[in-house]
Amino acid sequence: MKDLIVQKYGGSSVGDIEKIQNVAKRIIKTKKSGKNVVVVVSAMGNTTDELIKMAYSISDRPIERELDALLSTGEQISISLLAIAIENMGHEVISLTGAQCGIITSNKHFKARINEINTQRLESELSQGKIVIVAGFQGINKENDITTLGRGGSDTTAVALAAALKAELCQIFTDVEGVYTADPRIVPDAKLISEISYDEILELASLGVKVLHPRAVELAGNHKVPIEVRSSFTENKGTLIKEEVKMEKVLIRGISLDENIGKISVLEVPDKPGIAFKLFSSLAEADIHVDMIVQNVNRQSVNDITFTVALDELQDAIEVAQKFAFEVDAQKVLYDRGVSKLSVVGSGVVANAEVASKFFETLFQLGINIQMISTSEIKISCIIDKDRGKEAMKFMHQKFNM
Amino acid sequence: MKDLIVQKYGGSSVGDIEKIQNVAKRIIKTKKSGKNVVVVVSAMGNTTDELIKMAYSISDRPIERELDALLSTGEQISISLLAIAIENMGHEVISLTGAQCGIITSNKHFKARINEINTQRLESELSQGKIVIVAGFQGINKENDITTLGRGGSDTTAVALAAALKAELCQIFTDVEGVYTADPRIVPDAKLISEISYDEILELASLGVKVLHPRAVELAGNHKVPIEVRSSFTENKGTLIKEEVKMEKVLIRGISLDENIGKISVLEVPDKPGIAFKLFSSLAEADIHVDMIVQNVNRQSVNDITFTVALDELQDAIEVAQKFAFEVDAQKVLYDRGVSKLSVVGSGVVANAEVASKFFETLFQLGINIQMISTSEIKISCIIDKDRGKEAMKFMHQKFNM
Repeated sequence: MKDLIVQKYGGSSVGDIEKIQNVAKRIIKTKKSGKNVVVVVSAMGNTTDELIKMAYSISDRPIERELDALLSTGEQISISLLAIAIENMGHEVISLTGAQCGIITSNKHFKARINEINTQRLESELSQGKIVIVAGFQGINKENDITTLGRGGSDTTAVALAAALKAELCQIFTDVEGVYTADPRIVPDAKLISEISYDEILELASLGVKVLHPRAVELAGNHKVPIEVRSSFTENKGTLIKEEVKMEKVLIRGISLDENIGKISVLEVPDKPGIAFKLFSSLAEADIHVDMIVQNVNRQSVNDITFTVALDELQDAIEVAQKFAFEVDAQKVLYDRGVSKLSVVGSGVVANAEVASKFFETLFQLGINIQMISTSEIKISCIIDKDRGKEAMKFMHQKFNM
Repeated sequence: MKDLIVQKYGGSSVGDIEKIQNVAKRIIKTKKSGKNVVVVVSAMGNTTDELIKMAYSISDRPIERELDALLSTGEQISISLLAIAIENMGHEVISLTGAQCGIITSNKHFKARINEINTQRLESELSQGKIVIVAGFQGINKENDITTLGRGGSDTTAVALAAALKAELCQIFTDVEGVYTADPRIVPDAKLISEISYDEILELASLGVKVLHPRAVELAGNHKVPIEVRSSFTENKGTLIKEEVKMEKVLIRGISLDENIGKISVLEVPDKPGIAFKLFSSLAEADIHVDMIVQNVNRQSVNDITFTVALDELQDAIEVAQKFAFEVDAQKVLYDRGVSKLSVVGSGVVANAEVASKFFETLFQLGINIQMISTSEIKISCIIDKDRGKEAMKFMHQKFNM
């Protein structure tokens, strides 16, 4: 659709009635500039946490289907309140739940994937000149049951809608000004990045830069949806994420530190074909996302397999690993919460050997031991001791003159 | 469906987590007795009021469609929490929103009428042995928009489901023990009625006995659904409402006092054919339910028309009446909030002239002026001064030896 902008406001942007009024004004301003506007909203402030708390006060293991139905009310409340605010300011508006918006997902509660969006209703409301407010984070499966999309859900809703409606831009409003060359809370010198490619932001995002969930970026990249990440509290331009970024000969785009990971090692795994596959397919079945993997032959015919996962999946991953170790007769399973992943990201990283050597040299100068290394087209990551992470990040930012 | 019981629990019965657990136990007990169980639940405690307050803090006139979407979250929260509680106690259960339950309503937000119920999903879940928890008070219209049913909504949902599924009984759990011969807070001698007919309870209900909304009773009567009104806090049997009531030669079933009414008079309306119709059709268009009507010729060719409405519709009714008065050149509109309706109800009321004469005589003995009179097959009602209402009710209860 021509002149269509999809905006997404997170929970902190609609945390109370006053903030909802401010967001309403902002939306109307965009509408008045001649754009069609679809707005995706999260639940107000801590609503989701409070609903989860209520459910867990009743049961240690609330049924996922019911918990999803419960959680979806959080967004339903914020979309109706926002619609009421916009209408009160004199603009035509309609709110749509995930179901009403035709967001059809997989069956997996808590972590549903968007399979398709039936845009008839959306397009019909937009063609009547209405501002459309959509509940983020939710959809329905083929059985008409409410599902939620899990982490990064509302961002994903926004990008998916922008893709389905061929929007010219998807704006993600958040509580920071955009994407920085490093976390400004740790590195005060960090600079706002004005433009960045999907691949680069993807690496930064999956490396712990929290502004946008990797899932949403991937989707945006696949459908070439330009995204702007900007603050909902200021009028400043943020960071534009798109396919082609002006070639400014930027080698390094940013430095990131992910402290939210844990490391698991399965020691002395018998060296048989397909044995690593068995471990990682068991992890995939349990919906555990494995990040870095290192496999090295220890002695004759046994391997050590080491991998990292997000901290909140560590417990489940340990269980899977232990079951695997028992089945294949591996010696033992070790895990470590005291690690971080330090990464340098940029299109010049791999092309330029100097980047890698400077990266390793800097860690060496600080006397920091590198536990694991992983590289891609545009990043180098190392697993290091968590206690030294922030220090290493600051020093690295300086070294690369960012 | 054979052996099916529909239970309805009001907001005070599910007011907190502990109460939800108690309701869950009660439901499971019914299920274990060999019944199929469908449960209709209202929003927890004051949730609905809090949501309304939020909406009105944003706008003086929140759009009805959005307010309905907002309010419906209240029931969605209670059904998921109740389902979580039941599952935690080891029973298969599923919650259904109005939409999921196939409750299709008219378009009228706030006051939607149930047009049909598509019971496929309900029956499929029941046939799998699940306890089904349904959100009361809500449905969807043909456009897939969420509607709410207005006053008595959850009772109506329960009875409509019982009718659609041909349940053997619809139990309405509430915070009183059942239906009494008079309001026990005003008349301490009032007795619990064990059985009562639809017509009788309908008169009592429309006369201000709050246990069950007239709308739900009408629906039950039309579909011959037996209803039991009972306490959710005790194990006592309540009041059974059904078509045929044992003939016990009961003349008087109960005495009721409705303090929630207002009186409007339009004075000196020119006496032309169809002129009263014009007033009452305007009121009907504004969705105002008119109760008693008295029209008397004042002088030659002018009438006074007096009618009563529920207090919360008084303001709107006055506006309609004033517009009407202006259009037809009537002299003026008066209104009075200081009235009550005192009624005596029972199958013997009309057949036995003695009842009417005793009723009027009692009011005369108390020196209470009768402002309006209305009679039906089974009741006599008088509009009297609100200040004397409770006193008249107590005295009447004594006079009729109830």
